[in-house]
Amino acid sequence: MTSNADKGLLIVLSGPSGVGKGTVCSMLRTLAPELVYSVSATTRNPRVGETDGVNYFFKSKEQFRSMIEKDELLEYAEYVGQYYGTPRSFVADTIRAGKDIILEIEVQGAMKVKQRFPDGVFIFLMPPSLDELRSRIENRGTETDESIRNRLSVAVDEIRLLEHYDYAVVNDRVESACERIQSIITAEHCKRERIMPYVKSWMEEVR
Amino acid sequence: MTSNADKGLLIVLSGPSGVGKGTVCSMLRTLAPELVYSVSATTRNPRVGETDGVNYFFKSKEQFRSMIEKDELLEYAEYVGQYYGTPRSFVADTIRAGKDIILEIEVQGAMKVKQRFPDGVFIFLMPPSLDELRSRIENRGTETDESIRNRLSVAVDEIRLLEHYDYAVVNDRVESACERIQSIITAEHCKRERIMPYVKSWMEEVR
Repeated sequence: MTSNADKGLLIVLSGPSGVGKGTVCSMLRTLAPELVYSVSATTRNPRVGETDGVNYFFKSKEQFRSMIEKDELLEYAEYVGQYYGTPRSFVADTIRAGKDIILEIEVQGAMKVKQRFPDGVFIFLMPPSLDELRSRIENRGTETDESIRNRLSVAVDEIRLLEHYDYAVVNDRVESACERIQSIITAEHCKRERIMPYVKSWMEEVR
Repeated sequence: MTSNADKGLLIVLSGPSGVGKGTVCSMLRTLAPELVYSVSATTRNPRVGETDGVNYFFKSKEQFRSMIEKDELLEYAEYVGQYYGTPRSFVADTIRAGKDIILEIEVQGAMKVKQRFPDGVFIFLMPPSLDELRSRIENRGTETDESIRNRLSVAVDEIRLLEHYDYAVVNDRVESACERIQSIITAEHCKRERIMPYVKSWMEEVR
């Protein structure tokens, strides 16, 4: 029995901005409570109702910078003057305990995680069509034709990153997207490589 | 858009004898009526209630031998003086029409199909445990210890063929096995390679 068969899966859910990653992940929490959801570290202040270790690991800037220096983050980014990042140990401990963990993350962060965890299951959430993407961008506000074309071009560039992912899930309906993600996780657990060690142990026993 | 994205999947369901392939496939017909089920050709006589083209394609020995000569069968075998085989055109036509087709087949036949269709999705149905396999063999009849050991050894040898498959599905409960097979099919449809052509066409359009 190799340890690989007993390890949990690292599932990375990403996709272009505005595709609905957060909404899908929220519904997934209800539909798939057996999954562990990665908790990010941040330097921003807790909001009312937020709990340390549940919504975020709240850190001082000094603590966060020390985590960066000690390579304790799988990836991190700065946004509006605050740090956000994915603690490596929480992910590693969960997998080692045989539980599947899911990370909902921006495309840039996902590419960093892939460097560290090439064996992860990388799922790209896709808009249902180019027209849908265009109308979402148009409906955001009163923009010029040129700026709409620009934003569409940026979004399509982000979608190009799909080539680094294992799966694409079209977010046509949130429930359907969640079901597809759950199917992917089930299928990944059925992969030959995960079952082969058991078969090898049977062969030893029978010999 | 490449044709690959529009093609149906060839799903091959196999596994050691006695693992319950037929039972799982029957329930799958009820649970997944959207799948096409491959119809075998045979030289044996139709039984009462069997319809040509539904249960089997009934052929004379001459017709069957002609199919072999013209390479019209994906695989075939002789069993108790009768031929059984998988017509290639039925499989190829279904896939080309964008529909998924499932073949329930012995391990030897599955290996032949893999030579012709390496892109197929190969699913191996597994007994839940070595003990379960042993007790199934023991319960078959009044056999000597040596013949039980022999049969167990043959069964484990068949299970070794798992290494040529993509997925292993443990047949602990028929319903669960079917659900896992359906998840595998869903996941295969979400594979990046199948969606990438659409993304490429978006890029062309936006450019």
